[in-house]
Amino acid sequence: MVEKISITIFTGSIDRLTGMAILASGAAAMDMEVDIFLQLWGVYAFKKDVMRKNMEFSEHKEMAESTAKRLQELNLPMWFDMLKEAKEIGNVHIYACSTACRIWDVGLNDLELVDEIIGAGAWLEKSKDANITLFI
Amino acid sequence: MVEKISITIFTGSIDRLTGMAILASGAAAMDMEVDIFLQLWGVYAFKKDVMRKNMEFSEHKEMAESTAKRLQELNLPMWFDMLKEAKEIGNVHIYACSTACRIWDVGLNDLELVDEIIGAGAWLEKSKDANITLFI
Amino acid sequence: MVEKISITIFTGSIDRLTGMAILASGAAAMDMEVDIFLQLWGVYAFKKDVMRKNMEFSEHKEMAESTAKRLQELNLPMWFDMLKEAKEIGNVHIYACSTACRIWDVGLNDLELVDEIIGAGAWLEKSKDANITLFI
Repeated sequence: MVEKISITIFTGSIDRLTGMAILASGAAAMDMEVDIFLQLWGVYAFKKDVMRKNMEFSEHKEMAESTAKRLQELNLPMWFDMLKEAKEIGNVHIYACSTACRIWDVGLNDLELVDEIIGAGAWLEKSKDANITLFI
Repeated sequence: MVEKISITIFTGSIDRLTGMAILASGAAAMDMEVDIFLQLWGVYAFKKDVMRKNMEFSEHKEMAESTAKRLQELNLPMWFDMLKEAKEIGNVHIYACSTACRIWDVGLNDLELVDEIIGAGAWLEKSKDANITLFI
Repeated sequence: MVEKISITIFTGSIDRLTGMAILASGAAAMDMEVDIFLQLWGVYAFKKDVMRKNMEFSEHKEMAESTAKRLQELNLPMWFDMLKEAKEIGNVHIYACSTACRIWDVGLNDLELVDEIIGAGAWLEKSKDANITLFI
């Protein structure tokens, strides 16, 4: 059976999303199946009008600017570019939570990189045989 | 064997608790066993004198008020009401960390929806055969 | 096969690190294998020049001071002392993410309690057969 990582993304903070993207990219490069489910702030962060200008940090906010600069200095790709590349090379599916989509009043066309809108039950069904399950 | 989701709730933020409640409700509706363990801010958020007036958001705090309003507009139940219903329909157990209970100086009578106070070892024992494990 | 918990530490907040340390200590005491991988703020929090003076809280920041005092009052060991003891009694390995080490420009000598610097792929390889996987 193919190995699988299942990531529930609640966060919309770009520092946590960067940590997530490094794991998702690594898993895709190892030929693991990568399943991602976006909840509240996750859906928000994948909105076309938010993705590229979002500067929210989850912690150590006083260091946000210098840390963001440091990431650029190292030419580390942005989290969404890492995820885009992971989708191109690997078996990566991104789902958005139907409830969160109602909250932000968005459909698939308003979101980037998202394959499908599904409910929590369908998500759990996909997650329950994963090797690694994370809530980010 | 029955399928199980095991959720360690560290957070006391109502946005993250809402994401958790949607997963827990979904799992209960699917007849999964749902085990929940409350750590520091989790125990705080389940205190009888805190649960209903807690307005803490984990991120995007400048949008907290408008987002909370939007949840009401959609008639989305509060996270604790979702959890209460999940306990009524499903196989849901909520445990509070004994260390966290000492920190807040609370017993079972000071907490809502909590079934038992246990230590970290007992919690890990319950978690290790779960299909899905999350730290929220 | 030995039972294993696999913890990805993204956070550098001492409240979340305390929750993590309680789980890691409990697992070590139960003879579980404990594998830990530090990402961005996790590596930062394990820096020799940060570990002991870090006061960052992840949430409920207005209660940070009183909560930190309460932990001292109960003589609860600091998170890093709990982890140090867990390493002495149990099978605990701590890895730092190579990308995060480049971001902070640190090597193994700049970090406490860390055994090795590895990439995300090597980390996922270690995680995929764990009983419990958490992202903190």
